[in-house]
Amino acid sequence: MIKISLDVMGGDFGPDVVIPGAAKALDRHPDVNFILFGIESQCLPILAKYPKLKEKSVFHHCEVAVAMDEKPSQALRRGRYHSSMWRAIEAVKTGEADVAVSAGNTGALMAMAKFCLRTMANIERPAIAGIWPTLKGESVVLDIGATIGADSQQLLDFALMGGAMARALFEIERPTVGLLNVGVEEVKGLEEVKEAARMLREANLGTIEYYGFVEGDDLGKGTVDVVVTEGFTGNIALKAAEGTARQIAELLRNAMSRTLLSRIGYLLARSAFDRLREKLDPRKVNGGVFLGLNGIVIKSHGGTDAEGFAAAVDVGYDMVRNGLTEKIQNDLKKYHARRLPPVGPEAA
Amino acid sequence: MIKISLDVMGGDFGPDVVIPGAAKALDRHPDVNFILFGIESQCLPILAKYPKLKEKSVFHHCEVAVAMDEKPSQALRRGRYHSSMWRAIEAVKTGEADVAVSAGNTGALMAMAKFCLRTMANIERPAIAGIWPTLKGESVVLDIGATIGADSQQLLDFALMGGAMARALFEIERPTVGLLNVGVEEVKGLEEVKEAARMLREANLGTIEYYGFVEGDDLGKGTVDVVVTEGFTGNIALKAAEGTARQIAELLRNAMSRTLLSRIGYLLARSAFDRLREKLDPRKVNGGVFLGLNGIVIKSHGGTDAEGFAAAVDVGYDMVRNGLTEKIQNDLKKYHARRLPPVGPEAA
Repeated sequence: MIKISLDVMGGDFGPDVVIPGAAKALDRHPDVNFILFGIESQCLPILAKYPKLKEKSVFHHCEVAVAMDEKPSQALRRGRYHSSMWRAIEAVKTGEADVAVSAGNTGALMAMAKFCLRTMANIERPAIAGIWPTLKGESVVLDIGATIGADSQQLLDFALMGGAMARALFEIERPTVGLLNVGVEEVKGLEEVKEAARMLREANLGTIEYYGFVEGDDLGKGTVDVVVTEGFTGNIALKAAEGTARQIAELLRNAMSRTLLSRIGYLLARSAFDRLREKLDPRKVNGGVFLGLNGIVIKSHGGTDAEGFAAAVDVGYDMVRNGLTEKIQNDLKKYHARRLPPVGPEAA
Repeated sequence: MIKISLDVMGGDFGPDVVIPGAAKALDRHPDVNFILFGIESQCLPILAKYPKLKEKSVFHHCEVAVAMDEKPSQALRRGRYHSSMWRAIEAVKTGEADVAVSAGNTGALMAMAKFCLRTMANIERPAIAGIWPTLKGESVVLDIGATIGADSQQLLDFALMGGAMARALFEIERPTVGLLNVGVEEVKGLEEVKEAARMLREANLGTIEYYGFVEGDDLGKGTVDVVVTEGFTGNIALKAAEGTARQIAELLRNAMSRTLLSRIGYLLARSAFDRLREKLDPRKVNGGVFLGLNGIVIKSHGGTDAEGFAAAVDVGYDMVRNGLTEKIQNDLKKYHARRLPPVGPEAA
């Protein structure tokens, strides 16, 4: 049994999306129990429409819902201990839940998750990892927006954590990891990226295979299983790619509806278009994973629908089932054990 | 008459692409005269096949061709004064040419252009500006890879220069300018980006309209005419978007060829697909413009074909015809005149 806590008030549509989304996820994973946090008067009438979900859930009333545009510091002040967001995270801390899922505002969610769960030993900064659809399948990309900037040690931590996530998600033994850079030649790029490359080569880790530098277009190609960068660049790359996908979809739609022939062609090729749409469906890869905390928190897109929210729950489910937190902790332990100088009489 | 110098040896295919490309551009712009720099034995046999181009060109033999994988410092040492790349740039310096176009390696081209043409007064760093296809038309995006990192003053310079380019390219009076950031709220983002935002608001420039922060997905939407960022992020955003476009094109191709119905549908909707392909054709927006130097240099994609190289020549042509360098110089002068405290007896 996997226990998932939900911030029912999170996202642009709150319970209207979260509850049907949880119901969908439950259909796929009957071994899930939910712990729901939300404002009773808004949630219970909707929950009543999903008897199966209701049966597998415990509902807790919270008085505070964090707003989508609230600043992290404000959300912390106002929503700590009392908000649905906080309590969903807290359930992970107390062990009542294995993972928390929220479609609430990213900054507030990260601030609360850090405050409540704390970062893992030896990790200075958490990261948000996203699942990027590629020509070969999927890759893990991090950081897509937890923090801005990262030094070489933090980039190495991201590589370790992203590698653990790829192992949990794709069930491969030693995922390939690339550092996002502006050129493949050794001379190019930021100092901290170059230094991280040197450290990754020297560390010669058993859990990941360091591939080298990758460029922006390697993201879509799926050149590596894990792409590591700091949060500013990662967030902009992600949104630039999402924007391009939407742009092409709109151009395609316009092109296909222009003439009678193209409309007929569209109808005949309908299944092909549906297949393509499904492959590119952003809802299917919804769910940013917070890495580096003592517990798993999944961030769903705020504007997603029930299908998208269910996908975020799926991601949380997979991460728990495949022991993400333990994988990260073990990998970090292995790395730091080798890295630290021996202690005791032998060291002298 | 517009005089364009070409590095005929530049790019993955050198004269095989540059000469036919120049011929195409000449068909569109009969008022162009070319100055060609290259290795005689490789260029003249190809040039002989294009009598119209030959008639409108002067050919200069150069002994050295800069390699595509040469480091900038190495290229400068080996190719200064003698290479086709250097001499194409030098022709702009001496006034023999109005603009130089090269498909050669970006790092070497920028190093030589800086060394030969020098940066404009009050400009510390040049930038490469790209033309980004959007849902509304096109936007100017800079820096897409000239240098890594930029402080607030440099970002402001980029805004001014990008604004001048947008005026030259789109013929609008006061283009809107946005700073690329990870969130639209004032609190987010890098310190230098926030500081640049403050400076742009305070400067209240007549030549551009400062819009505010934009995010990665605003690039494809065309939210603003000019998007400003530093070269690391800009390059990765550009390549992430290019990669996504290629990825979708491949998925679409696969989807359309899977079943008989979809193949028939494809044939009927052929003209729609052709229109879409044309809209997304990366060759049509080929040509990165080096901004901030005393002269215009256009970088074409190294791997492009004749059509793509011709598009880069078109960009150079437009920049000259619309007085890009003068526009930038005037805008900079206006900004700095207002910025400096008054000098002389009135100042006391």
